[in-house]
Amino acid sequence: MRTADELRGAVETYLAALAFVPDLGDLEAAVRYALEPGGKRIRPVLCLAVAESADGVVEDALPAAAALELVHAFSLVHDDLPALDDDDERRGRPSTHVAFGEGVAILAGDALLAEAFRLVLSYRDPAPALELVEATLGMIGGQHRDISGDVADLAEVERLKTGRLFAAAVGLGVLAAGVPEREQGPWRAFGDELGLLFQVVDDVIDGDGFVERLGLEGARALADDAGERARQRLETVPADTSVLVALVDELSVRTA
Amino acid sequence: MRTADELRGAVETYLAALAFVPDLGDLEAAVRYALEPGGKRIRPVLCLAVAESADGVVEDALPAAAALELVHAFSLVHDDLPALDDDDERRGRPSTHVAFGEGVAILAGDALLAEAFRLVLSYRDPAPALELVEATLGMIGGQHRDISGDVADLAEVERLKTGRLFAAAVGLGVLAAGVPEREQGPWRAFGDELGLLFQVVDDVIDGDGFVERLGLEGARALADDAGERARQRLETVPADTSVLVALVDELSVRTA
Repeated sequence: MRTADELRGAVETYLAALAFVPDLGDLEAAVRYALEPGGKRIRPVLCLAVAESADGVVEDALPAAAALELVHAFSLVHDDLPALDDDDERRGRPSTHVAFGEGVAILAGDALLAEAFRLVLSYRDPAPALELVEATLGMIGGQHRDISGDVADLAEVERLKTGRLFAAAVGLGVLAAGVPEREQGPWRAFGDELGLLFQVVDDVIDGDGFVERLGLEGARALADDAGERARQRLETVPADTSVLVALVDELSVRTA
Repeated sequence: MRTADELRGAVETYLAALAFVPDLGDLEAAVRYALEPGGKRIRPVLCLAVAESADGVVEDALPAAAALELVHAFSLVHDDLPALDDDDERRGRPSTHVAFGEGVAILAGDALLAEAFRLVLSYRDPAPALELVEATLGMIGGQHRDISGDVADLAEVERLKTGRLFAAAVGLGVLAAGVPEREQGPWRAFGDELGLLFQVVDDVIDGDGFVERLGLEGARALADDAGERARQRLETVPADTSVLVALVDELSVRTA
């Protein structure tokens, strides 16, 4: 069983060696820039850890794991654009549109999304691709609610913006490991709790979202509860989930 | 055998009834706006006509045909943005970003692309999805060459920007009809010529692109040659290609 850090290393190695279609030409530079190390790679690491816990082979899950990171990078590149969140910096570096221009950033985001689908289509079964597409559509719908101020139901907006891709990370992990549908329930419930945990801790770090609604103590309690339920879900899975428990702990106490 | 106009009617009906994922919420209005009638629906009609000529069932090809139109609509919405081609009008109406704002238009384009993939994933075989994804990546690469002024090889840029999706329309038609790979060659060669024909006639109408390079007479001759080769390719196919021949004629003489 590999640790989360070892799995993170496998993701970095895979992403660095990833071949994009030659037709992208010089656009590849912007695509690679948006994918460069610096992120925590939480979604792909989660996908690989689930696959390995569920008796799958890490290497079989790598294309799906990388596809998750490409979709995540696509969403960051487009969300950072001036017409959306207007963020000039990302992970301490200029955002893609600052480094390459807005037009190139729009196309680089498009290319990341299409390359993600190409990656996940390397499986013979279309199920992983469909799961990733539906999570992506949920994420886009969540971002639209956010920019249009339709955030009365904050939990729903966050579930779409963040939770859907976390849930897909767990879903793609169990699919890559070949877990039969009737046994996927507890895994998927774990993914839902972990997505909530991640988002609430994000809000605690940034002092917005759930903190504005519930106060710091309330948000902290919500995160603790989600983390507790995530651990409980893992206890119901007949597998060695030690790496996943460690991941829950890591996400619970992170400060950046 | 249905005529091109009858197939166009089938496409309009299918698109009008298309269900998007509920998670899109209010973003669906912008997505539908970008897909509203007014376009010629050439790519989906081509796909259906190929499928029917190749002894397939039109209804089986409809999801693929609609997916092609969604990818086309995605590319128009993003290309019209101020940071790219900066077009305020499309088919005599305000572009999507003028009608809904830039941020919404970026997300609507993203949603069109993801919905296109969802549609084409309704086939059990991942081959149509892979063909559509690779054509989309070529198209994005072509648009990047265009905006970055890397157009020394105009024919290559046009082949990527326009030809790849035309070729995919033919490819998805033969895949939906179940044409075995060894018999797809002449069909695909036809698609390549038709894409070139379409693009050169576009340039003749707009007075740019190939007209700037070859003059009006030269471009007209290039279009005629492509049309002639397209008809010749169809003659080598053991099928009733009368609707496709009519489509070549229609594309040859169009003025808008």
